[in-house]
Amino acid sequence: MSDAPKKVVLAYSGGLDTSIILKWLQTEYGCEVITFTADLGQGEELEPARAKAELLGIKPENIHIEDVREEFVRDYVFPMFRANAVYEGQYLLGTSIARPLIAKRLVELAQQHGADAVAHGATGKGNDQVRFELSAYALDPSIKVIAPWRIWDLTSRTKLIEFAEANQIPIAKDKRGEAPFSVDANLLHTSSEGKALENPAEQAPDYVYQRTVNPEDAPDQPEYIEVTFEKGDAVAINGQAMSPATLLAALNDYGGRHGIGRLDFVENRFVGMKSRGIYETPGGTILLEAHRGIEQITLDSGSGHLKDSLMPRYAELIYNGFWFSPEREMLQALIDKSQEYVSGTVRLKLYKGLVTCVGRWSDMSLYSEAHVTFEEDAGAYDQKDAAGFIKLNALRLKLIGNRNARVK
Amino acid sequence: MSDAPKKVVLAYSGGLDTSIILKWLQTEYGCEVITFTADLGQGEELEPARAKAELLGIKPENIHIEDVREEFVRDYVFPMFRANAVYEGQYLLGTSIARPLIAKRLVELAQQHGADAVAHGATGKGNDQVRFELSAYALDPSIKVIAPWRIWDLTSRTKLIEFAEANQIPIAKDKRGEAPFSVDANLLHTSSEGKALENPAEQAPDYVYQRTVNPEDAPDQPEYIEVTFEKGDAVAINGQAMSPATLLAALNDYGGRHGIGRLDFVENRFVGMKSRGIYETPGGTILLEAHRGIEQITLDSGSGHLKDSLMPRYAELIYNGFWFSPEREMLQALIDKSQEYVSGTVRLKLYKGLVTCVGRWSDMSLYSEAHVTFEEDAGAYDQKDAAGFIKLNALRLKLIGNRNARVK
Amino acid sequence: MSDAPKKVVLAYSGGLDTSIILKWLQTEYGCEVITFTADLGQGEELEPARAKAELLGIKPENIHIEDVREEFVRDYVFPMFRANAVYEGQYLLGTSIARPLIAKRLVELAQQHGADAVAHGATGKGNDQVRFELSAYALDPSIKVIAPWRIWDLTSRTKLIEFAEANQIPIAKDKRGEAPFSVDANLLHTSSEGKALENPAEQAPDYVYQRTVNPEDAPDQPEYIEVTFEKGDAVAINGQAMSPATLLAALNDYGGRHGIGRLDFVENRFVGMKSRGIYETPGGTILLEAHRGIEQITLDSGSGHLKDSLMPRYAELIYNGFWFSPEREMLQALIDKSQEYVSGTVRLKLYKGLVTCVGRWSDMSLYSEAHVTFEEDAGAYDQKDAAGFIKLNALRLKLIGNRNARVK
Amino acid sequence: MSDAPKKVVLAYSGGLDTSIILKWLQTEYGCEVITFTADLGQGEELEPARAKAELLGIKPENIHIEDVREEFVRDYVFPMFRANAVYEGQYLLGTSIARPLIAKRLVELAQQHGADAVAHGATGKGNDQVRFELSAYALDPSIKVIAPWRIWDLTSRTKLIEFAEANQIPIAKDKRGEAPFSVDANLLHTSSEGKALENPAEQAPDYVYQRTVNPEDAPDQPEYIEVTFEKGDAVAINGQAMSPATLLAALNDYGGRHGIGRLDFVENRFVGMKSRGIYETPGGTILLEAHRGIEQITLDSGSGHLKDSLMPRYAELIYNGFWFSPEREMLQALIDKSQEYVSGTVRLKLYKGLVTCVGRWSDMSLYSEAHVTFEEDAGAYDQKDAAGFIKLNALRLKLIGNRNARVK
Repeated sequence: MSDAPKKVVLAYSGGLDTSIILKWLQTEYGCEVITFTADLGQGEELEPARAKAELLGIKPENIHIEDVREEFVRDYVFPMFRANAVYEGQYLLGTSIARPLIAKRLVELAQQHGADAVAHGATGKGNDQVRFELSAYALDPSIKVIAPWRIWDLTSRTKLIEFAEANQIPIAKDKRGEAPFSVDANLLHTSSEGKALENPAEQAPDYVYQRTVNPEDAPDQPEYIEVTFEKGDAVAINGQAMSPATLLAALNDYGGRHGIGRLDFVENRFVGMKSRGIYETPGGTILLEAHRGIEQITLDSGSGHLKDSLMPRYAELIYNGFWFSPEREMLQALIDKSQEYVSGTVRLKLYKGLVTCVGRWSDMSLYSEAHVTFEEDAGAYDQKDAAGFIKLNALRLKLIGNRNARVK
Repeated sequence: MSDAPKKVVLAYSGGLDTSIILKWLQTEYGCEVITFTADLGQGEELEPARAKAELLGIKPENIHIEDVREEFVRDYVFPMFRANAVYEGQYLLGTSIARPLIAKRLVELAQQHGADAVAHGATGKGNDQVRFELSAYALDPSIKVIAPWRIWDLTSRTKLIEFAEANQIPIAKDKRGEAPFSVDANLLHTSSEGKALENPAEQAPDYVYQRTVNPEDAPDQPEYIEVTFEKGDAVAINGQAMSPATLLAALNDYGGRHGIGRLDFVENRFVGMKSRGIYETPGGTILLEAHRGIEQITLDSGSGHLKDSLMPRYAELIYNGFWFSPEREMLQALIDKSQEYVSGTVRLKLYKGLVTCVGRWSDMSLYSEAHVTFEEDAGAYDQKDAAGFIKLNALRLKLIGNRNARVK
Repeated sequence: MSDAPKKVVLAYSGGLDTSIILKWLQTEYGCEVITFTADLGQGEELEPARAKAELLGIKPENIHIEDVREEFVRDYVFPMFRANAVYEGQYLLGTSIARPLIAKRLVELAQQHGADAVAHGATGKGNDQVRFELSAYALDPSIKVIAPWRIWDLTSRTKLIEFAEANQIPIAKDKRGEAPFSVDANLLHTSSEGKALENPAEQAPDYVYQRTVNPEDAPDQPEYIEVTFEKGDAVAINGQAMSPATLLAALNDYGGRHGIGRLDFVENRFVGMKSRGIYETPGGTILLEAHRGIEQITLDSGSGHLKDSLMPRYAELIYNGFWFSPEREMLQALIDKSQEYVSGTVRLKLYKGLVTCVGRWSDMSLYSEAHVTFEEDAGAYDQKDAAGFIKLNALRLKLIGNRNARVK
Repeated sequence: MSDAPKKVVLAYSGGLDTSIILKWLQTEYGCEVITFTADLGQGEELEPARAKAELLGIKPENIHIEDVREEFVRDYVFPMFRANAVYEGQYLLGTSIARPLIAKRLVELAQQHGADAVAHGATGKGNDQVRFELSAYALDPSIKVIAPWRIWDLTSRTKLIEFAEANQIPIAKDKRGEAPFSVDANLLHTSSEGKALENPAEQAPDYVYQRTVNPEDAPDQPEYIEVTFEKGDAVAINGQAMSPATLLAALNDYGGRHGIGRLDFVENRFVGMKSRGIYETPGGTILLEAHRGIEQITLDSGSGHLKDSLMPRYAELIYNGFWFSPEREMLQALIDKSQEYVSGTVRLKLYKGLVTCVGRWSDMSLYSEAHVTFEEDAGAYDQKDAAGFIKLNALRLKLIGNRNARVK
């Protein structure tokens, strides 16, 4: 197999599935494996991954465990939130936005180690394979990408367990049976899908939710917080400046406690099928409402409407895995240009699953009480101008009306 | 004043302001006035308007009071909801969508009575003047539109009251002083703006809300309802078929009781300024979530993404008053075409201000458990196809990557 | 090979390549073959295809030769021209628009004959495979599509010729060697690509052009024609009513004689690579200029700008093979809606490769000399209205200007 | 008249109309007038404007005559051409793009002189008033703009001439009668409209064209030129580097000689009416074809299609006068981002009104002969990948097809 990879950087979680992949790569290709385990804020201990990798024969210098939370929020999550990006009207893209960063680090490590391939544990049915691979190919067109789930014949849980046992891969007790659903998590969100959730007619059971309380169990009293923005990015909560990841983590605490950010959703995957997911994005949901609130007073209609009209395309690009594409970067340039004055503070009410902007203020505000007031406006606005404005906007419609009357 | 109108159809609410306009039209132009009072579901008795109009000298045959609720919901609200239209990300367009219907009836009555003008009570600062007038001009290019607020010199509350008193116009006690804010209502929503609400930094006081309970005061138990759609329009609640207006009224009851549909918002008016409004759209907010839910399983990504990308423009057209424009009709043709299979039922959870779709099913569903399942899919989907799919999607990115590496 | 097709409908030109495919299908799968040969106006005798098919053992009742020119122009070309569709700014989509019709007939014949598969002669590098297959799958999700070029090992000219000789397939003398480039033709256009044209830096040699004279060799005198439209479709030339295909053929004569419609182009294929093509679209180029000309006076800015902004997406859908997709049909509904009043006549000047609209008139015209005139306009337009129009359009910009000055 | 301007900067051409405006400003408002005369490449001597201004009593230090050609092409024309901007499919925006620069200089001179107003000679029916005024208000929200044509009562040629005579304004002999049409010119184009051209059915007479020969009178031999681009802007012709204005002037020479760039057009004005114009844009038409040619090989489909889809909106913004708006700047950021690699050379054929790109090459090229070749491609592209690519693109369409078959 001359085409077989010689050295592979694997996105390694330390869990059973990627441990099997690790071993499979070694046995299938006889190749050297480098592991990359990222702390994206998924809330799990990562150091155990080191021991497992060593157990599976990975050399210490080939084991990489990194905390990338700040980079994740600063360079991926925040730029995306500048666009108020939601996929198909409701999904906050929590999984989609994490994949490019992982792929980037895989490729960088491959270059550093002289590896000719990267590998990931995403299946052949989902979006993540696309996101990993488009990102990897864009960053290094010569890289090979190994997606074992599309290749191997370990097509059932039984076969996987047999392979693990045959290869001395430790199996946690609760991993022996099938999980009732599949989970992905990072600092932005937790997603759950598959199996128990595959019937979109049935309400998702309570035990699926891991990161947010049921709104019914949230505090009976609303809580108010203030979020401050600079140039489109959140920089402080209740006046306290925070780094991007710290701030998002704090918003997650608020949101989780108040049951905010649950979404039960059926979406269109890039590969052509529909799937149903349960998403929990507590901090992100607050952040979106907050960002919209500050834009309300700092962004004019020309900028806002242009952004709004391009948001679906931008969100689709991220969802489909095109973060590292020139068109995403072009849209980002447009969006970032709009955020120059998006600075100020919003006040938010958090209550039983609901986040509501109830106040916003900014030195950059375009809101002019002088103009809008019902009171005397001291000449700020001449109501008679509206007559001409309407007349000329109507001229076209009148000409059409005359024409249509004439020819009918 | 040879240009003065001879016969005017006035949009007449029966309230103080439009009564003053009625009298002003009579005295300023010596013209005959026809009144039109529409029941759009604003929740007020309309018959008193008849007596007031008569008191002000309007001939009985010139007084028109009409219940247009079914037409309003069927021909305006529902077509708009097929698009999931929201203005600037959040506003459900409750006022905007009512104006074209009123303008249409004004023009029709003008033609019926041989009137040369219509008149409305919208001010020169707002959007409603534009919506009334663009609609009127589009439907009858030769009509005159009288907007007294842009013309007269009754520029303060004092002057208005003086004019009323001088003209024997009855003044309700609570209308003598200034209202703390201005209200518009119809079956879709209630909006409040102005005065007490003019500082967007300050939370709106509780007494502003008229149609929804405070979520804190909503029931402590969630309620579940099922909404059924046919070709994009809601036709039944909990299996009970209802006419459009009846159905929306029922959703308003559910929503109002559960504190659903409140929005505190700063928006960009078409005339160029920002304004702050408090909107209550209880039934509409439920309807939007329900419609999105049924589209999740019945609409494919091609249709859905195209609709999503055009929605902001469609919403802007309605907001700006271009309902009777060819471009709105073109977009409507596109949207309606997409709704052919948007039929089925969604299950919604209503709880303390939050409405969540928790289940959806349809004979028209495009969701294929056979394809998406984590289990064996019996050949429905060949994971190996994904390799080619990704390769060709990546080809462009690889060529770019090679080029960029080459020239840097 | 249980998956092997039993009965296949082949898109059969009668040429060497599709004859080889015919034989290959028979030998590879032992299946029955039905041939479909369409007259799309490519300008070749089709009856010889019957004799060749019979020679290769196809039963007479399995040989279908059809003249689909009217359907092609009426149901594919004309709807597309209503949109003024051009791909990547310049290409008139002559090949793209023919594929869906062929695929549709293949699928219909398969259903009629109880065939389980269709086959085509497009290669694995191009767009046509995508267009054929997406169309076929959309129209019959259970159909198999056989694309021999992606499957077989006849990967060189030598191997193809050997296969033909071994199977008694007649080889025209001029087909023995490699053609210097590849050609596709139909009533709308002729395209040439490959081999001699593969270097985009080099000017295409004169002998590539087959359907248009070199502009240098076109008549030294311009010729004028008038084209009449009804609801967006051309219906007459110089006052003479013609069927769609007859009219397009006549425009091709005019255009070909005057050297109109040549395009030397590098485009982006859907499969991710760039390719260079030489296109000749004589009649289509005239038709586009004519249609734009009649829209100039019959379409308002709202309709026109909306169409313009969606045209690139519409053209991309056709180019990529999504003719039979819901989103193309949604866009078509929008476009068709706009054409209700696009009726009238344009006058065109044809001269040495150039077609120019020099006059246009219509009962449906929205052009109002009364409004635009530099002379006294008798009150049609009040210039003072422009002041208010500009003031309110400027209000937002002023507020921005004030803000920016304030914070800098 | 407390609102009267005290000091006004006038856009002054030195011609009769703006001389009348100059005098009218002095007499109407008793204000000091500063004149600004710009060389935008309109091809007229500007120094005579100085003498005329002095004759009308303008102080020498208040007379500004500036050559802004390089700024015009570098900062306005070239950025616009990066977008391939055409309005309504055909108009190259030659007048539209010059107005913002003039307005900017007027405002800067007003600030420099402490003037409180600017004035222009555009009428109340056209687009130019909007472009001047939106630009001025955006750059200085406190500025007054005086548009005499919307204010005064000099509403006929006779009255204008009388005013001129009464005020000792010299009248050139040929200006005494009415011009048969109105002309605007700058380095990018010459436009003619009005009067003799007001019937869009009638071909424009030959004498209207001032800058291009009739294609019939152009050389009988084609001419070839090469244009080189760097980052989207033309920098050399036939290998000779040139400044922006010099290069555009040279292209104008080529185009004018070959009859290139004539357009007979009916367009939609922003103020709501249609108008007919004759445009001559010789160099710009060449530049557009050249820029498209170099983008063909240097821009990928993602970038190109995104640009294409936004171009109509960008062009509309420029046409409507919103050059100095945040949304134009946002789009510019997106467009400029796309031009990073748009460098290389195109070869163009110029012949009797036609400009055709016949070759293009670049170190930045994305064209890969290795991929596209009909020959053996040495593994650059695996045709089997196309099968998976098509399968997954078709999956959605198949699911739709199945659904539709099921429910019909």
